[in-house]
Parts: sequence; C-alpha cells; structure tokens
Amino acid sequence: MNGAESLARTLLACGVDTCFANPGTSEMHFVAALDRVPGIRCVLALFEGVATGAADGYARMAGKPAATLLHCGPGLANGLANLHNARRARVPLVNIVGDQATYHAPLDPPLAAETAAWARPVSAWLRTASQPEAVGEAAAEAVRAASTPPGGIATLILPSDASWGEGGVAQGPLRVPAPATVADAAIAETARLLRSGDAMLFLGGDALRAQPLAAAHRIAAATGARLMAETFSARMERGHGRFAIDRLPYNIGPGLAALAGVRHLVLVGADDPVAFFAYPGQPGRFAHPETAVTALSRPGEDGADALARLAERLGAPDIAPPMDGPPAPASGAVTQQALGETLAALLPEQAVVVEEGITFAFGLYAPMATAAPHDYLRHVGGAIGVGLPLATGAAVGAPGRRVVSIQADGSALYTVQALWTQARERLDVTTVMLSNRRYAILDHELAAVGAAPGPASRTLFDLGNPDLDWVRIAGGFGVEAARAETMESFADLFAAANRRPGPFLIELVIP
Amino acid sequence: MNGAESLARTLLACGVDTCFANPGTSEMHFVAALDRVPGIRCVLALFEGVATGAADGYARMAGKPAATLLHCGPGLANGLANLHNARRARVPLVNIVGDQATYHAPLDPPLAAETAAWARPVSAWLRTASQPEAVGEAAAEAVRAASTPPGGIATLILPSDASWGEGGVAQGPLRVPAPATVADAAIAETARLLRSGDAMLFLGGDALRAQPLAAAHRIAAATGARLMAETFSARMERGHGRFAIDRLPYNIGPGLAALAGVRHLVLVGADDPVAFFAYPGQPGRFAHPETAVTALSRPGEDGADALARLAERLGAPDIAPPMDGPPAPASGAVTQQALGETLAALLPEQAVVVEEGITFAFGLYAPMATAAPHDYLRHVGGAIGVGLPLATGAAVGAPGRRVVSIQADGSALYTVQALWTQARERLDVTTVMLSNRRYAILDHELAAVGAAPGPASRTLFDLGNPDLDWVRIAGGFGVEAARAETMESFADLFAAANRRPGPFLIELVIP
Repeated sequence: MNGAESLARTLLACGVDTCFANPGTSEMHFVAALDRVPGIRCVLALFEGVATGAADGYARMAGKPAATLLHCGPGLANGLANLHNARRARVPLVNIVGDQATYHAPLDPPLAAETAAWARPVSAWLRTASQPEAVGEAAAEAVRAASTPPGGIATLILPSDASWGEGGVAQGPLRVPAPATVADAAIAETARLLRSGDAMLFLGGDALRAQPLAAAHRIAAATGARLMAETFSARMERGHGRFAIDRLPYNIGPGLAALAGVRHLVLVGADDPVAFFAYPGQPGRFAHPETAVTALSRPGEDGADALARLAERLGAPDIAPPMDGPPAPASGAVTQQALGETLAALLPEQAVVVEEGITFAFGLYAPMATAAPHDYLRHVGGAIGVGLPLATGAAVGAPGRRVVSIQADGSALYTVQALWTQARERLDVTTVMLSNRRYAILDHELAAVGAAPGPASRTLFDLGNPDLDWVRIAGGFGVEAARAETMESFADLFAAANRRPGPFLIELVIP
Repeated sequence: MNGAESLARTLLACGVDTCFANPGTSEMHFVAALDRVPGIRCVLALFEGVATGAADGYARMAGKPAATLLHCGPGLANGLANLHNARRARVPLVNIVGDQATYHAPLDPPLAAETAAWARPVSAWLRTASQPEAVGEAAAEAVRAASTPPGGIATLILPSDASWGEGGVAQGPLRVPAPATVADAAIAETARLLRSGDAMLFLGGDALRAQPLAAAHRIAAATGARLMAETFSARMERGHGRFAIDRLPYNIGPGLAALAGVRHLVLVGADDPVAFFAYPGQPGRFAHPETAVTALSRPGEDGADALARLAERLGAPDIAPPMDGPPAPASGAVTQQALGETLAALLPEQAVVVEEGITFAFGLYAPMATAAPHDYLRHVGGAIGVGLPLATGAAVGAPGRRVVSIQADGSALYTVQALWTQARERLDVTTVMLSNRRYAILDHELAAVGAAPGPASRTLFDLGNPDLDWVRIAGGFGVEAARAETMESFADLFAAANRRPGPFLIELVIP
C-alpha cells in the first residue's frame, strides 16, 4: 500500500474516525486512500479555519481527537488561528497537512511555503514523514501525542511523494498514558492551606465537570474556601441539579477585585490567571502580590481524582446541589439578563452550549446556571472566529444532542463558512446571532486606553453601513434563518428551532 | 508624541496614506493615533485575509504600498495566505502587526503567540519595534524595504507599550533605490542568443506592461524569437491596440509542449518556470533538459529598459499592434469561449480585470485579447482566496476605473467577507461569480494522480448539497446581486452593472 493508505488505516486503527477537511492538490492521494478505506467520516469545510475549529469542538465533546486535512503552506496558515485556540483549550487534535513532494520543494514552486515553521508554534508534536515507510508509524505516534494528557496538537506533514509512494505500513494504536495522579503530599499541603483560611480553589480544564465541581463544593463548605473558575474554559458541566461556580471576570479591574483578600490561591487544572492584555499602569496578573499561588493539580494531572481525595481527607460531608428551576422566558426589550433568562427557560435537556458572544454574552452566564443540564463550551485562546466552527464540530462529536451556538456577529464573520457545513451535514445547531453591528469590545478597549472615538475608530469599529443581513447570509449558505427584535419573538423562534432537525439561525438584533 | 503617533506620521510622510485594517485590542493606541493624524484612509476588513489581499491589489494598481493593520498572533495568521500571495507577486506592502506589551508577553496570556515566527517566511524585512523611540525610524525603513525593487513585504511588529509610550519621533522618507539597470553585456549576450535561433523570451513581472510588451514584439519580429508570458502574473496590460502574448499553460503536459524545441529560454523579469506540484513520473521544470535558461533581467532589474535597449541593438523596426476589434457578445449556453467573447465585447475602457477564475477561466484569456484596453491581474502565489480582496484593493488603488472581478466560487468562499468592504466603501466592482458548485480543479487533480472518484472525493469536491446562493450571500453583505443562466441575461446584467456606481455581483451558473 502507499503512504496515504497506511495513514488512513493507521488513523482508523487508532480510533480516529472523523476528518474535517479542506484538501488541495497535494492531498489528492490521501483523498484517494480515504475512498479505498471505509470508516472515516469526511466532513468538508469551505475554509481551513472551519476545519480546525470544528476538530476542536469535536474533541471537546467526543473526548478523542479528530483529524484535520489541510493543504500545504497557506492552507495550514488559514487554519492557524483556530489551532491556536485548540492549543490553549488543550484538546487532542491530529493535524494532517499535505506538502510539496520532497524533490519538488527545492524548485520553490509558487505554493511552496514554510509549512513546518508555521505549524511549530501551535504543535505539541510535529513531524514531517518524508518516506512512505515512515507514515504509518508517524500517524500512530501523532495520535498518541495528541491524546497524551492534557491533550495537544500533533501535526503530521505529509509530502506528496511520501503519500503516493509504495511501502506504507499500517500501524496499530500505541498506549496513551493516563492523567498523572497527584501525589499525597500535594493533597495534604492543600488541605493545610485551605484550613488556614482566606483560600480560594481556582478551577480550570477537566476540574469543571460536574463530579469534580461537586467535590470542590464539598471542600468549600467544609473549609470556607472560596471557589472560582477560569474565565474561559473548554468545557464546563452546568445547569439544574449541578453546582454552579463564578468565573473570574475578564476585565482587569473586576478581576483584581474578585481575587482581593485571597491569601492562598490553589490552582486545580488552571493556569495562574493573567490579563488578556497589558494596560498602562495596571498589573498583568490577577493574583495580588500578597497572594501565594500553589497548585493542587496541573493540566495533564488528574484533578478530579485529586479533588475527591482532598474532600475525603478533609472529611467534607456530602452536600446537595441547589435545585432552583429556571426562570420564565423574559419579554420585551432585548437585554443580557432577558436573553439569559430566556435561554435558561428554553434550553433543551443535555444541550451543548457554545459561547463566543463576547461583550453581549457577559451577562448570560449567571441566569443560565438554572437551565436544564448542559455542557458549556467557550472560546479559550482569544482568537475570535472559533464559535461557529466549534459548534459545528461539537454537533458532529455529540450526535443526538442539540447544540446552541451563542455568537457575536463580528466574530462570526471570520469563519462564517461554517454555516454551510452545518447545512451539508444536517447538524442540529441553533445559532443565536447577537447582532449589535459593532466590534463593541473595541469600544471598551479604546475607552480603557483613555481615548475618545474619532473618525478612524468610528470607521474601524462599526459593522453597520451597510448592516449585515444574517438571514440572507445564512440562507445563502443553506441554513434557514429568521430575525428577532423582541424577546417574545426570540423565544418563539428559539423553541421552534430546537424542535426541528438540522441547523437554524436566529438573528437577534441588539438595540 | 507616543510611538503610535510617530508611526502614523511617519507612514504619511513616506507616502503611505491607505491602511487596510482589522485591528484588535493591542492596536488601540494606533487607532487612537489615526484619529489624531488626518490623512490616512482607513478601510475596514471583516477578516485579516481581506486586509492583506486588498493591500496587494492596491499596490498593484497604485504602484506604492498600503499599510495593513493586523491584530497580534492569530490575527496575523489569518492574513498569512494572502501575504504569501503578495510575496509571490512581489508587491510592496507595509504589514503592521500589533503585539502584546513587551513586559506582558512573558506571562503567556491566552492570545500570546509567536508573531515574528509566523511573519518571517513571508517578510522581506521584519522588525519588532520594542521602544517608542524606535518606531518612527522602523516605519520609515519598512516603507523603504517594501518599496525597494521588485517590492516585498515589510513587517513591523508593534508591542503595545512601544505604541502607547512617549518618546516617539516621526521620520521623513528614506531614499528608495530605482530598479537596477541591466548591464550592456547581458543585452549583447541576449542579442547573440536570439540571433542563433530557436529562442524564446519568457516575460514576467513588469515586463508585461504595454511598452515592454511592444519592445518584445519588435524583437520577436526581427529575430524570429518566440514570446511567452509566465502563467500567473501580477499585472499585465492588455486589450485593443496592445500586443498580446500567450501564457505558459498551467498543466504540466501542455506546458512542456509549449516549451518544446526551445534552445534558449531567456527570462525577462520571470522565474525559471516550474510546475505548481509534482506528479509521479513527470518533470518539475517546464524547460526541457536540452534548453539553456538564461536571464536578460531578474525581478528588481529594469526589464522594460533592457527590452528597449535590446530592440535598438538588434535594429528591430517598429511594428504596429494588431487592431482587431472585439467579437460580438455571445448568446445561448454558458461556455468559456462565450463568456470570454462577451467580456471582450462589453468590458469598459480602462477596466481592471482581476481573475481568480481557476478552471473555468482558462478559456477566457484568448478571446479577451481584443477587449478595450485594460489591466489584467491574476492570483500569483496559488493560495486561493485572493480574488475578492484583490479586486477590493485594486478599486481603492485605481479610483475612477471599473474593476471586473472574475471569480471561482470555491475560491471566493475563503475571503467572502471582502464583499462587505466593497459595499462599505462603495467601490466600483463588478463581480462575475463562476458558480460551478465544485472544486473542479480537484477533479482534474484526482484524475491526474490516476484515481477514480469515490465517496470521500465526492464529498470533498462537491460544493452543492446545499447549493450556495450567491445572490443571498452578496445581499447579506450589502452588495446587490442577480443570477444569470444564459449568455443573454449575463450580458444584460454585466452591461448594467458596469454603468452603475458601486459594487454588483452576477452569479453566473456554470452548467
């Protein structure tokens, strides 16, 4: 068999059965191999950033990597922003990138580019398989590397002659290490810190699933420690019958205030929190200088197990989660509180909420705590344009569950092509397009640097003139859509959209 | 003044008065500076690839660089594919990228990425201005580096503290070198080769303007040398009353045939032609092993002057260009020949034709030779998704001229957001969307590797199911649009679109 076929057979043997693809000429042999090797679901994206963002969303829900298939050089470049996001979200992802034939690249053909140099900054593992014989082994190692906790991007670059050449050898799966167990000493030390008072558990990553969240709440109830979640998390289990947790605010002032008075900040699967950007005269870290920062578990360690053992060691009694039901759907004007309440009231059971709502979504989090149980996925790496692809991939990775994609309009435009893939694959995605027709975040940021708006900033932050018409855009990509300007019409559309199969987009006009 | 203001004032002093922008938080001080420094036209793009592709199109027509303004890390990454194209087209471009504050980056905030590592492969010049005092000087050097023949990308990375810090110094323009003059010896040697028979002048870059093309035809008439143009050229002057030139075919077989029997291939501003991709058992270079390849002028040398001197040295008499008028508009079914004839018949005087038509546009070139005089801009670097941005930037760079954007549907989807910028800026662009609803190039490429279509390739090459509705997509982005399924309706729409101000899109359904 040729190298390409060994790649397809190895991926399948290693459990990678989904491929988000935007191939080009240098990938033709792999496409031909996919035609010969049944069992891999190919999902076409019309832009590489859709493919990489969808692979991220898939992995968050399926708990295993998908493959991407990207074209050499500039094709990879188009996928980098969402690979950056996936890296920050610590998801497993096997990133397959075609490249020029090894003997053709030195001629510097027009599409030749530094594929490896572009891939390196986002890749936990990177290899160019230059011989057909090396492709299968490299693919198996890529899957292992991607899946090794906490998860990362394994980029396999495949020159076309390694793809078409004979001598490929399919490989079986390699053993993937389990998350490392936290040492007893760290449990004991954390118990001591929590008992000393003024402590906070700062939770991120896998510690935001329902079970570790419950353990954290037991610990908090027993010790008086406070709990807080990282601002942007890859996947949180929320909703009715589950324990809620506040998030660290995005803005530096409120974020600093939230951590005021904390003597011991104990990280559980989260990073030491830092501001997205520097602002003149403001600190960069959220933890105050007098706060001692320690870790119970690092990303890649078993934080859920550590929290369970910590709760036992503290003798923390079981407690029951709050059982408040959701509010009624709101009526009248479109506000963040009203939207949050309406989403909480009408969210389908076991929905997957994907939120890249930026400014208008800040206020949705609190009221949605009482919605039906759901997973809550957020953009993590800060590169906008991940929401629609993430929702697309999550729907592929969690079949049978409704995906609710809460999306800011400005961010949506970076990867709007994802709507077509939702239509093509008939994915059960309800998109709530928050149409404020501004880069509203930049209004905040300009004010934060102390400047008043002038002609350039007015030009650069305004998405109106002309207004984007999301009903026509979605329709053009094959997704049915409608517009809502009041909460009543939104509630009607949202309930109806969630009952029907396939995608639907609601343009919610923000006054 | 702060660093950001010194940047704005320096750019303006150096003649850079147009900025294609998609800024983020780290660029707020530069945006605030643009508000204080009048004279720079800011054009908002909804995606960075639109900004970089538009800067390319602007430079091709204006003959000087525009600036981009991109967000740190992933924002730059989104612009890389069209920066790759701009690099291959050898256009001048000042690429301004914000970045994390120097003291904040070590905290590794979520958006931190290896901005310089990503920029390096596309940049002829690259600098991070880490101090406010260094920004003005770096900006002046960036403009000089970008403008130095043949033109290239100068990337200036601007950490936000260098932007907001006081101490900035505005600089005046630096002297830009003229294109190097070709030595007399090279002229004499080329004259000798051409007289020896079986020679071909292979023209690219600036040698494809009307004046050097006329000189090349004089030379050909006097010596019997053949003429051929590079396959993809940044800007060619064509049409009624100008000399036409055949292009090297894209496909390897016809390309090899076109260069058969050539003993001396003389490059004039073009590279030694190589195939886009390797194919098993096929050569990678178009020149045959027995062909000697030499250069009259390299990119960055004054090829127009060299051709004029060569014609004089050969005593080549003046000749008149053919004065054939255009054919009548075609009727009936939509074919490449019919479309080419109709475009030739109806093209406005001094139009700027931007062509990223891929497979369906191969047949347009020949019939369009007799159209009204026009500039003809093509995608050069092979990264698809440059056409709509290129047309957008060309319209900004050539005010008063109609831009005709001949665009393949699959490629258009990578940077479809460009349509909104055309609407926002009321640009005189007529887009001819070639809607074949396939990645037709990949059908060819799959056949070229000897494979038959199967389920994966059928999934991955088909843009139907659902069909993209370009009239709705364009309308959603604020561009009026209509659909044509016959040549008659296309001709009516095309003539009307070119008469009205502002953008219009015609979806031409390819049977």
